[in-house]
Amino acid sequence: MAEAVRLGSAARGTTAPNPNVGCLIVGADGAILGEGATAPGGRPHAESIALAIAGERAAGATLYTTLEPCNHQSRRGPTCTDLILASGVTTVVAAIEDPDERTAGEGLARLRSFGIDVRVGIGEAESRDSMAGWLTRRRLGRPRVTLKLALSIDGKIALPSGESKWITGEDARAHVHLERAHCDMILVGRGTLAADRPRLDVRLPGLEERSPRRALLSRGEPVDGWEMLRSPQDIFGLHDVNDLLVEGGSSTATAFLAEDLVDRILLYRAPIIIGEGRQSVGYIGLDAIGDAHGRWEPRDGRQLGIDRLEVYERVRSPTR
Amino acid sequence: MAEAVRLGSAARGTTAPNPNVGCLIVGADGAILGEGATAPGGRPHAESIALAIAGERAAGATLYTTLEPCNHQSRRGPTCTDLILASGVTTVVAAIEDPDERTAGEGLARLRSFGIDVRVGIGEAESRDSMAGWLTRRRLGRPRVTLKLALSIDGKIALPSGESKWITGEDARAHVHLERAHCDMILVGRGTLAADRPRLDVRLPGLEERSPRRALLSRGEPVDGWEMLRSPQDIFGLHDVNDLLVEGGSSTATAFLAEDLVDRILLYRAPIIIGEGRQSVGYIGLDAIGDAHGRWEPRDGRQLGIDRLEVYERVRSPTR
Repeated sequence: MAEAVRLGSAARGTTAPNPNVGCLIVGADGAILGEGATAPGGRPHAESIALAIAGERAAGATLYTTLEPCNHQSRRGPTCTDLILASGVTTVVAAIEDPDERTAGEGLARLRSFGIDVRVGIGEAESRDSMAGWLTRRRLGRPRVTLKLALSIDGKIALPSGESKWITGEDARAHVHLERAHCDMILVGRGTLAADRPRLDVRLPGLEERSPRRALLSRGEPVDGWEMLRSPQDIFGLHDVNDLLVEGGSSTATAFLAEDLVDRILLYRAPIIIGEGRQSVGYIGLDAIGDAHGRWEPRDGRQLGIDRLEVYERVRSPTR
Repeated sequence: MAEAVRLGSAARGTTAPNPNVGCLIVGADGAILGEGATAPGGRPHAESIALAIAGERAAGATLYTTLEPCNHQSRRGPTCTDLILASGVTTVVAAIEDPDERTAGEGLARLRSFGIDVRVGIGEAESRDSMAGWLTRRRLGRPRVTLKLALSIDGKIALPSGESKWITGEDARAHVHLERAHCDMILVGRGTLAADRPRLDVRLPGLEERSPRRALLSRGEPVDGWEMLRSPQDIFGLHDVNDLLVEGGSSTATAFLAEDLVDRILLYRAPIIIGEGRQSVGYIGLDAIGDAHGRWEPRDGRQLGIDRLEVYERVRSPTR
């Protein structure tokens, strides 16, 4: 399943509006017979690709998938449950059930009714992480929002003049490019557009084609090449975006945080003190320190060259 | 030597103006025959205490000490080199040479001249860390200055109202009390005194007696129970302080950073976002981002309950 998760994770940012599923088919002797991830744009599905590679060798094999195989009819091809039933696969291991009400356990039930040995829940946490954007969209009706911040020790994003090149080092910036490659859309505010003219592209060998759509948070005139969002609430209209990366600046970060529309923070912390400078976040509606607690959970922390990456995730009750 | 360092470290904050040395005497069979650390106020020395415990059993033993034994005459007792020569110890392992020009290798040379097997440099880094305050005073003519900051993710120390209770949790606050116990003096600014009326005492079981001297950075009227420093430069007059802890607030932190008089930062980072609020550090004379780099090195990082401790040390060339 770890390999299936890896396959699915690599496809994150390319499969919207569909989930980035990973699939692996393993023979009775342990040989890998096929593998796949959801194709760019969402079709074919991961299972379909892996089964096509395995061909007749799939008979008697085990299929690992990070998400329950689809069971709802589509004009774009047979369901994955039908493909699995036709393949001769005898065991299906799925990390999580499909929250899509059109499937929601029915795909697995159908496989079981045909005598296939079905197991659910293996690698569930890792699979949820790998498809967090799509799962957020299913649950909250909007993309998962990741806020990127590059800060000094004392939490500044620039000098008073606006100079911010460079707070973080090359390793941190390369990591940002990798994260961009795994998002469907990147958003900045008009201030950042005017000051930095950011390209927001992916400058990593082999991933140049993965540069995501660019959006501007602004009530002003449209800008060529940029999609326009007039308010953070407009993300509820982004039906073909699983992962949205908010890159700056302070006003944009503040707007998303104030509306509680940030799910994850990627914080690149440089070992420098700026002192007087531009703050990273403005007024977000907080009136008591106590109310700030219990909202963010550290999920990862590691050194990236001279800088440190801190990852925080918003703690939400299951109904939010 | 690790045990000698531990003994010396435990005495940090109590031995000024003398160094907090640790000493262990081990018999040929590996038995611990004596141990000691510099006594409160600086006398007796660690070696003297350990030798007194070992008594006649020291004959043929090995003496581990975190600092070269003293060799300069004092009215307050015999030198440690004399005590060692009289004890019958046959091997002396010292972590570092005494930078005191009155000893500066002569203690070890004298021991060698009497046929004692002398080794230097074992556990040097750990010993330097444990006596960093005293070593800073020897090298720079002032205490080592540790700046304590308790910050949100976005680098704020309080709401705009000044409310700062509590940004960090109990584990982080307990760690502050432990650090206080190992400093000779704690300093705050008048704003913090007026707003918080801080006791700055040590509230840890068994360490209540370790509450350090309290100082105020202010050009105003003296306050009962507080020593007065009119400017950060006044620390050059603190000849009996090895470790100074600067606890706040923003103006005080800024004053010390602007004069480049901070050697270490203890940063307690809470997983909260405050947004609009009081900044931790103001103008420190920085006019280009590039000039901020290369000054601070992360030295430690660990979780303290829900918070994270980040330790940074000022990178200084040997001549500074």
